[in-house]
Amino acid sequence: MFQLLSTDGRARRGRLETSRGPVETPAFMPVGTLGAVKGLTPGMLGACGAEIQLANLYHLALRPGIEVIEELGGLHEFVGWSRPILTDSGGYQVFSLAKMRSLDDDGVTFRSHLDGAELRFTPESVVEMQQRLGVDIAMVLDECSPWPISREDAAASMRLTNRWARRARTAWNGGRGQALFGIVQGSTYLDLREQAVAELTELGFEGYAIGGVSVGEPLESQRTTVEATAPLLPADRPRYLMGVGTPEDILHAVASGVDLFDCVMPSRNARHGLLFTRRGPLRIKNSRYRTDPRPIDPECGCEACTSCGRAFVHHLIRTGEITGQVLATLHNVRFYLDFMGQLRDAISSGSLYDIEPPPAVRRGAPDPPGS
Amino acid sequence: MFQLLSTDGRARRGRLETSRGPVETPAFMPVGTLGAVKGLTPGMLGACGAEIQLANLYHLALRPGIEVIEELGGLHEFVGWSRPILTDSGGYQVFSLAKMRSLDDDGVTFRSHLDGAELRFTPESVVEMQQRLGVDIAMVLDECSPWPISREDAAASMRLTNRWARRARTAWNGGRGQALFGIVQGSTYLDLREQAVAELTELGFEGYAIGGVSVGEPLESQRTTVEATAPLLPADRPRYLMGVGTPEDILHAVASGVDLFDCVMPSRNARHGLLFTRRGPLRIKNSRYRTDPRPIDPECGCEACTSCGRAFVHHLIRTGEITGQVLATLHNVRFYLDFMGQLRDAISSGSLYDIEPPPAVRRGAPDPPGS
Repeated sequence: MFQLLSTDGRARRGRLETSRGPVETPAFMPVGTLGAVKGLTPGMLGACGAEIQLANLYHLALRPGIEVIEELGGLHEFVGWSRPILTDSGGYQVFSLAKMRSLDDDGVTFRSHLDGAELRFTPESVVEMQQRLGVDIAMVLDECSPWPISREDAAASMRLTNRWARRARTAWNGGRGQALFGIVQGSTYLDLREQAVAELTELGFEGYAIGGVSVGEPLESQRTTVEATAPLLPADRPRYLMGVGTPEDILHAVASGVDLFDCVMPSRNARHGLLFTRRGPLRIKNSRYRTDPRPIDPECGCEACTSCGRAFVHHLIRTGEITGQVLATLHNVRFYLDFMGQLRDAISSGSLYDIEPPPAVRRGAPDPPGS
Repeated sequence: MFQLLSTDGRARRGRLETSRGPVETPAFMPVGTLGAVKGLTPGMLGACGAEIQLANLYHLALRPGIEVIEELGGLHEFVGWSRPILTDSGGYQVFSLAKMRSLDDDGVTFRSHLDGAELRFTPESVVEMQQRLGVDIAMVLDECSPWPISREDAAASMRLTNRWARRARTAWNGGRGQALFGIVQGSTYLDLREQAVAELTELGFEGYAIGGVSVGEPLESQRTTVEATAPLLPADRPRYLMGVGTPEDILHAVASGVDLFDCVMPSRNARHGLLFTRRGPLRIKNSRYRTDPRPIDPECGCEACTSCGRAFVHHLIRTGEITGQVLATLHNVRFYLDFMGQLRDAISSGSLYDIEPPPAVRRGAPDPPGS
């Protein structure tokens, strides 16, 4: 399924082959929680350059329900997206969104954050639901540890995740070109991460994810965890860093050997008026953009940058117009996908380590000079 | 500016020539109150087949302000739309949205519905603002009478509108291919409408609008007003029915000789989940569409109809996802523009009177059989 095309240090340029077409890696998967990236149609997402999108099993299981999507011919048919889809297993959402969860060795019982309805996820049911959705990449159910967590609790949690992974692998019936990825937990304890990798790789997944990062730990810990864990994973399988992150985080992880990413950052920031550019982020609501005729990013080819400018997006976001959110999302998602293309080219030409990430998004930091 | 291509009874097939390209008539102008149709980018609006869009002077004067748009090179440049734009004069908004308005013979003073700031519109200032925006078609400031209204009050109001029209015409400096349209008032009193037409046509506008309809009067009165007024207007100038309406209303008005339309109905209904189809409207939130795989309208070529289906739009609108509003708006606007194309073809081939309008939107009416 995964073809390694070239390397630059630890960074990998590859290709994921799926029955719904190839995904050039390193790749970013825009997040379509309920089946669509908020504000974009499937056609717009494709036009941004996305080759794969992520959807959330947890949200889709609540609404509209797995049986509805199955009856309609599967997730791709339902959402009108013919390229690959990866679904998150719901582990993260159960532990971050759901109410009154009760964890036992067999699975997790929780109440919907919407209406309080009781639901239960087990490793087997989560695998089965993703198979019924017909997704290209399914994820195992894991327990996503909070941070901070004691070594003892992190170890117990990681062992539970790995027992669940074994059951998921057994339950998995990967017909029709579907792949199942395991998830490495272990918090910031590097020896636990190492143990998790050793156990999971014995089970032989089609790919491996690094989970439980970007859950509140310091950036240095996140970096150390990624740097230490990614190289332990099998070289012939795709490596996916879940829920990360800024362009800078992604560059760091790519340089550590990670191939796949997802994050709500480009789309969520867009809706709040934080726009990525090659010179650093713009807070487009800022009054300095009221009469700024320039494109959001002059090097960007998205519609927001080529047909209107900062002043119009400022105006639309300030007045609460939906079109402002649409244009901002279009731009930020395109920005991320262009950035991934830049990283892929750099790996191919052996120049990844020359790349400067765009200046980071920092709370309270001023907009970049000249912007 | 206006070329009459063919007629079918009173219906007219024509072409409006502007410096920003032609508009085939009868034409529908999607409403972009603040510069964009809510939910659509300029590119999406063009892809729906729109040749002209409407924007509201009142809203743009409040936010971002005329001077901002002028500084940025005019309205087209600001909003990223290179085809023609018509701006409403703000008369309707002053009388429907603004607070504490005080009308005198010279103009109208009112408070912004947003922050209470005091503003004043005069026939001259409204013309001047539209010239500064650089719009292709400007409208005179009018007083839009409420309904019901006494004959005496309607007559006084119409006379004020006509005095303002004369001042607007005098103030008008229609360089750069801009056109100024007069507005016929007179409520449902047909002799007042006739008098208004006689006075306005003496002033020699580039086009004429029928205003003050669809303000609460019975449908029959609206129809009678349109039927009686449209044929009085000069045959060699475009005729514009403001703020109307359903496909049925538009068909009726086209058959009475009207050329231009605008209405928030397709976009506003879309955001509330009321979708137009050739078989009648669908209330897409209805649970019957939860598992309906069919396109919203099988004869429609929009992205919502060709790439996903009713079940997905139902799901997105029910869950409050922006993309649901985007897809629904895309569909409804496309539906209206396709309908106008159908009317134009029918006039050309002399078959307008064979056209059945799609069943009307009626409060509480069931969705059409088989839908």
